[in-house]
Amino acid sequence: MSAERIKSFAAEFDPQPFHLDDAAGADSFFGGLVASGWHTAAVAMRLLVDSDLGLGGQGAGVVVESMRFPGPVRPGDALRLEGTVKETRPSRAHAERGIVKFQISVHNQRSELVLEATHVVMALRRGVAPGGL
Amino acid sequence: MSAERIKSFAAEFDPQPFHLDDAAGADSFFGGLVASGWHTAAVAMRLLVDSDLGLGGQGAGVVVESMRFPGPVRPGDALRLEGTVKETRPSRAHAERGIVKFQISVHNQRSELVLEATHVVMALRRGVAPGGL
Repeated sequence: MSAERIKSFAAEFDPQPFHLDDAAGADSFFGGLVASGWHTAAVAMRLLVDSDLGLGGQGAGVVVESMRFPGPVRPGDALRLEGTVKETRPSRAHAERGIVKFQISVHNQRSELVLEATHVVMALRRGVAPGGL
Repeated sequence: MSAERIKSFAAEFDPQPFHLDDAAGADSFFGGLVASGWHTAAVAMRLLVDSDLGLGGQGAGVVVESMRFPGPVRPGDALRLEGTVKETRPSRAHAERGIVKFQISVHNQRSELVLEATHVVMALRRGVAPGGL
């Protein structure tokens, strides 16, 4: 996470002082510039799409059941995502689809938890011909 | 929401075909290019910060209790946010702070619901000298 991108993301989407300016960040609760949680969440999505969880291209019907930001993300931080499938079940309405609930955890380079969320997505079931949902 | 920004946001954060390419969108479940939900969520944050809900600069300790995307966001859509405070209570740990739970709803120009979420934030209580959380 670069200071430059933290600030430019915030200027577009979350212009609160502690996301925009080093001095304002230092004067804040956070004690320094911190990334918008929505920036962290967007980066987590990228890590998820790039992961081997096999959920890329299956984004239809995402529900976020919870999302929290237990720790700040600061310039220079490197984020790592882990995903755990918690539940899978067939869709009641569409035989070719299934519902997958999974938890994601994002840690920084010091193994501090910075984002934790539970997502529910609709996916094509194994053995169903691809072609989109 | 411009097609160009929908695609560039997706290229950085959510590179699934239906967020990146008109033809891939047309071939998908969505029947056309659609914005990443994380793009919509980030725009909703901007609308919230710019609103008169008075929560700008109070972002410490946000928890998203739920977030769903009942309808797609397409190029040319104009989004409008409504927020409703559902609950306020003093912080148990910090007398000068309070906990505010509010629901946000984002509609497009046809009054179709595209995002619904419940946020819980920590804010300074009325009458407390400003100076950050």
